[in-house]
Amino acid sequence: MTKPQKLRMGMVGGGPGAFIGPVHRMGAELDGKIELVAGAFSQTAEKSRIAGESYGIDPGRAYATYQEMLSAERKRPDPIDFVAIVTPNSTHLPIALAALEAGFPVVSDKPATTTYAEALTLEAAVTRTGLPYALTHAYAGYPMVREARAICASGKLGTIRKIAVEYFQGWLAQLLESTGHKQAASRADPAINGPGGCVGDIGVHAFHILEYVSGLRVTSLNGTLRTVVPGRILDDDCSAFLRLDNGATGVLMATQVAAGELNEVRLRVYGEKGSIDWRQQDPNRLRVKWADGPEEIRHAGTGYLSESTRAISRLPAGHPEGYIEGFGVLYREFANGLIAWRRERVNALPPTLPGITAAVRGMRFIERVIESSRVEGWVEF
Amino acid sequence: MTKPQKLRMGMVGGGPGAFIGPVHRMGAELDGKIELVAGAFSQTAEKSRIAGESYGIDPGRAYATYQEMLSAERKRPDPIDFVAIVTPNSTHLPIALAALEAGFPVVSDKPATTTYAEALTLEAAVTRTGLPYALTHAYAGYPMVREARAICASGKLGTIRKIAVEYFQGWLAQLLESTGHKQAASRADPAINGPGGCVGDIGVHAFHILEYVSGLRVTSLNGTLRTVVPGRILDDDCSAFLRLDNGATGVLMATQVAAGELNEVRLRVYGEKGSIDWRQQDPNRLRVKWADGPEEIRHAGTGYLSESTRAISRLPAGHPEGYIEGFGVLYREFANGLIAWRRERVNALPPTLPGITAAVRGMRFIERVIESSRVEGWVEF
Amino acid sequence: MTKPQKLRMGMVGGGPGAFIGPVHRMGAELDGKIELVAGAFSQTAEKSRIAGESYGIDPGRAYATYQEMLSAERKRPDPIDFVAIVTPNSTHLPIALAALEAGFPVVSDKPATTTYAEALTLEAAVTRTGLPYALTHAYAGYPMVREARAICASGKLGTIRKIAVEYFQGWLAQLLESTGHKQAASRADPAINGPGGCVGDIGVHAFHILEYVSGLRVTSLNGTLRTVVPGRILDDDCSAFLRLDNGATGVLMATQVAAGELNEVRLRVYGEKGSIDWRQQDPNRLRVKWADGPEEIRHAGTGYLSESTRAISRLPAGHPEGYIEGFGVLYREFANGLIAWRRERVNALPPTLPGITAAVRGMRFIERVIESSRVEGWVEF
Amino acid sequence: MTKPQKLRMGMVGGGPGAFIGPVHRMGAELDGKIELVAGAFSQTAEKSRIAGESYGIDPGRAYATYQEMLSAERKRPDPIDFVAIVTPNSTHLPIALAALEAGFPVVSDKPATTTYAEALTLEAAVTRTGLPYALTHAYAGYPMVREARAICASGKLGTIRKIAVEYFQGWLAQLLESTGHKQAASRADPAINGPGGCVGDIGVHAFHILEYVSGLRVTSLNGTLRTVVPGRILDDDCSAFLRLDNGATGVLMATQVAAGELNEVRLRVYGEKGSIDWRQQDPNRLRVKWADGPEEIRHAGTGYLSESTRAISRLPAGHPEGYIEGFGVLYREFANGLIAWRRERVNALPPTLPGITAAVRGMRFIERVIESSRVEGWVEF
Repeated sequence: MTKPQKLRMGMVGGGPGAFIGPVHRMGAELDGKIELVAGAFSQTAEKSRIAGESYGIDPGRAYATYQEMLSAERKRPDPIDFVAIVTPNSTHLPIALAALEAGFPVVSDKPATTTYAEALTLEAAVTRTGLPYALTHAYAGYPMVREARAICASGKLGTIRKIAVEYFQGWLAQLLESTGHKQAASRADPAINGPGGCVGDIGVHAFHILEYVSGLRVTSLNGTLRTVVPGRILDDDCSAFLRLDNGATGVLMATQVAAGELNEVRLRVYGEKGSIDWRQQDPNRLRVKWADGPEEIRHAGTGYLSESTRAISRLPAGHPEGYIEGFGVLYREFANGLIAWRRERVNALPPTLPGITAAVRGMRFIERVIESSRVEGWVEF
Repeated sequence: MTKPQKLRMGMVGGGPGAFIGPVHRMGAELDGKIELVAGAFSQTAEKSRIAGESYGIDPGRAYATYQEMLSAERKRPDPIDFVAIVTPNSTHLPIALAALEAGFPVVSDKPATTTYAEALTLEAAVTRTGLPYALTHAYAGYPMVREARAICASGKLGTIRKIAVEYFQGWLAQLLESTGHKQAASRADPAINGPGGCVGDIGVHAFHILEYVSGLRVTSLNGTLRTVVPGRILDDDCSAFLRLDNGATGVLMATQVAAGELNEVRLRVYGEKGSIDWRQQDPNRLRVKWADGPEEIRHAGTGYLSESTRAISRLPAGHPEGYIEGFGVLYREFANGLIAWRRERVNALPPTLPGITAAVRGMRFIERVIESSRVEGWVEF
Repeated sequence: MTKPQKLRMGMVGGGPGAFIGPVHRMGAELDGKIELVAGAFSQTAEKSRIAGESYGIDPGRAYATYQEMLSAERKRPDPIDFVAIVTPNSTHLPIALAALEAGFPVVSDKPATTTYAEALTLEAAVTRTGLPYALTHAYAGYPMVREARAICASGKLGTIRKIAVEYFQGWLAQLLESTGHKQAASRADPAINGPGGCVGDIGVHAFHILEYVSGLRVTSLNGTLRTVVPGRILDDDCSAFLRLDNGATGVLMATQVAAGELNEVRLRVYGEKGSIDWRQQDPNRLRVKWADGPEEIRHAGTGYLSESTRAISRLPAGHPEGYIEGFGVLYREFANGLIAWRRERVNALPPTLPGITAAVRGMRFIERVIESSRVEGWVEF
Repeated sequence: MTKPQKLRMGMVGGGPGAFIGPVHRMGAELDGKIELVAGAFSQTAEKSRIAGESYGIDPGRAYATYQEMLSAERKRPDPIDFVAIVTPNSTHLPIALAALEAGFPVVSDKPATTTYAEALTLEAAVTRTGLPYALTHAYAGYPMVREARAICASGKLGTIRKIAVEYFQGWLAQLLESTGHKQAASRADPAINGPGGCVGDIGVHAFHILEYVSGLRVTSLNGTLRTVVPGRILDDDCSAFLRLDNGATGVLMATQVAAGELNEVRLRVYGEKGSIDWRQQDPNRLRVKWADGPEEIRHAGTGYLSESTRAISRLPAGHPEGYIEGFGVLYREFANGLIAWRRERVNALPPTLPGITAAVRGMRFIERVIESSRVEGWVEF
């Protein structure tokens, strides 16, 4: 009898100083089904080696480049089972394509690519290879976001009429990219980041959660981008009016110059009979407000939640779970889907896990907001 | 020595079943400087008499019409000192004009008139007569709104860059106007209410508080109106992008179909260094969020608030004041201004009290949003 | 036909610098049924005259002493209908006795007297005269406290098992009474205030709301008093374990040295099936937490509240009412009871209005906590 | 060059259906320094094997008993580095003693033992062996608890005068132990759980956090225990007055019958100048209330926090961390201490990590509350 095999993850990116790479590692390993075993963590062999050591992996599997990783791992008897991409945006596409070509399923940090055209290229590759592909829209992993989604789907709110979604940050209220701040710098450079600043970095999160929870699709929009901080190249403030496929409308606000705000993601969905209200900074509670009765606060981990929500909580009610646990849910769903796929060669990623469709829609959203802002008016989605 | 004279208020409107009339009465009398002594409370003599009795006034001063009131009061040795108008919107202008012509100062519920053209007519009358005129934008009477205004004016937030203001209600999520509901019916009929539905009823409140607190002025806007509930004539949902005179931008959201919301007025103003965040349903607290330090909650009634804020609290910190007290502040400022005006014939209403300028700007806002929504694009203010 | 008569209030106390006197005036007059017309506002004729002028009353009815007021008013054709007592504690009893002897109903600020023995004397006088007597335990006037009471009475929580009540203030964290602060000084002097410091000033409020909402009665207690601030004479911190008549227990915490707290009154009542949670600084919301379902937030002014709660709200949901409005509810109930009493000579004060029984129990509570603290153990109530 | 070695954890307990075992596993592995490699997970070999498989460990290291695990691991070339104990309370002592005797450092779930006498036995063994021993008082791992501790230690609040700590749960409001509920049953049986019910299960958490944050020590107490639910053997409700070594006092409330509460741990510490207020269900915020200035909300992950707080956050501000991350902090401190200890044979566990002293004090607390409740009065600590 041998040790039960965890799925082996190879990571691209996540080197020294990175924020999101370690989050992926922690989220992926949280439920004990995945283990980080290899990586091309940084742009030099030395930095990659150091990062590999900090992650506790076999030194021989800390590669200098992702090409090297893909090539070497293919030859191993115990190769990685999938690739996680946590690099700056501009490299997401080439890495994803190379991984898919090499036969590796992919988990990618968002945004999937830097442009809509690239997203279509990626979609084609995913379709052609038939390999599992997941996009870590982290907020989709929170139990109470799932509960909100379940409530919308249940019809209990009646027809959805109006959505307000916001994502307010303040960390770019100053010209941080001119001070040597790594994340700020890579986000400020269109060549690395793509053409959408705030809209690409966080607006797309707001867009995703809106569609993800409501089950509706944006059909046209009227967006306005603005660069508030002098000296900045890309937009740092984004607003959009939205029309949705059932006739509802929405307002989306995303900004990175809201001095004093941390990471205020909030979604409100209003139906005929009631509404839901969720805030990322208070993630384990969901407010449900009824036209004809008391406001409700639903708490994560309780027995009265929908079955799909209960299934993804790790802790009893009253014991907070957070952002890493959200990643953990997405990775767990990916792991389960991957195992099923290997068994049956059917793409079994669940609809709750954002994938290539979300990737394409997200990039389309960014591109459409930029266009709408340019023409100062409504554009079709 | 005689009894010190309170200012005598004559009210038009506020008959049986009215909501806002009693609020004006309570607010006006709260600080002991004003007394309701006369009124034309309803559209029939009988109903007016009944209302007068309920208000405890001399039966001889419960008039059948406002014309009668104005005429009779002028002849008394102890006439009313001013007229308070709390009727449906379409009668605000004729009553205000008649009162001014008869020499009576005016306090008017908002909106001041039903159209922008009417507002200009009213402005001309106010200017010509030189009489005090106040508009009860109630939220301007809350201490913590005054504190927010003082903080913005102090420059502590740095240059203001972004404003988000919202006013969400749910009470019109159904076609209430078809059920005999009085307030809903009068708001639903353009002939009574004017051409702006949600934008005129509550959008204008959001607009006012935005300008009132920030000290900025809207210079252009891109608004969108929508009638969500089938069968309704006027808009019940309003959103607008705003450009402000210092280069800042804003997003305004007002809706009356947000099922489950009660009266959610919220204003967030973001400057370079920090921001303020106020919610009407939690009126005695003001959140001040700093880019570089802890978030603050300032509490009404405390000693660390600005002098102008402290001056209008009636209670020690921790003892909640509310909506009626806000009206009380406006009426107190009106009373003090009126006394000064009678002494010196100089219009001495303080800048903190909304007046004819706010009235004109508010009506302009409504008209501009309607126009912008019609052309589906930006319009100058 | 003559002007409908408001009830005429004569006030004792409430002179220059007073906090609670003006609150009584505003609360009493709020609903238009009562008018302040006379008073012995301060300890000198001159100060009383000045206060009378500030209240806008007839100068001839601003008396130098309460004895003078009672005597003069009895002889008028339009005498006061009742006396409101808002003086320092030690004078509550003699004023109340004199008023009752003179045939005037009484509204008294709390505590009713300075000792339990005095309270029994007062109770005897109230019984003997049969006159209406009300005690303004302000928190009993909040709509959501009434809702909490209705829920407890309904049995929906099941048998009540556990109560936690707290009243935390910080304003006496320093030796304020040595700085010339009027309220602090009178509360610090046992001769004026009575023997209970914190326990008498705010502990008794916590005790009252506990019994008022739960419908239970304390049968024994184990209390501990402490004087935290050096130089202070009376206690400024009070805690007590309570046993209740249905077998439930409670913990009561009251302190005036909780630096940073304003006026944090909170009551939690736990039954077999659920619980209620109310905070005075957020008075228009009541949390109801169920063992088997989502937490509820009930909002004042909504249609789903109990009938008795709805009856005392003045405003639609979402429009905050506060402390003055709470007094207004108590005075309205007193006014209605007084009118009924005059018509039928039956004491018709409703059970929702705290009266002489609450007064006696409150003084007993203070006396028992002092005794328990002295013996460091349980005492019978 | 070989793969950098993670510390190897062997777990006792945590079999099928367990709540806290998996939390320990997730917390321990979160930061990539520790790996679960062995365990005696359950009371049968078969269940232990199944659990081992679910944890993904080598089947040969899923032992039938802890004795077997200790014996077998000692002989391996790659033995476990420490033992984590997550069994029912009554087995904590024998397992810890056996582990220490076998030379293994120990991490134990709380409470350390079932009685104070046992705790002294354990303390002697820890002292004698000189091995690292940690007790997972989970709340000590939250960043904002550390911030609260840093603020208290800094003296910014002035002398601490008053502490209120509470731990309210509702899950034992019914006789859950009679329904086959595993956690409830083991907690209900004195032979398994020890003599303290609520006081031992959660009261001790409240006690620990009080001392941990304030830096003060309880010197005497007056506690009262109660069994609320009919049929229950142990107490399910606990309150205590506390006297502290600097003259301050405290009130501790813990209950498991607060129907509707989830896991409400709250600590308030009041000093001369201000106070701190922390709630476990909102763990990433700490309220700091000042006597002379605005209330502050400090947010986890921000730059203005104390260095020790910043050091243990994994995520930028606004990205919630929770309960598992709190365990992760404790395990990280243990891991670092263990590495230092192996290098230098000096016990290098940091003072921020609860250890044997906290274990002994906690058991003493339980024993003293039981005694105080028995005698109905104050007892020395």
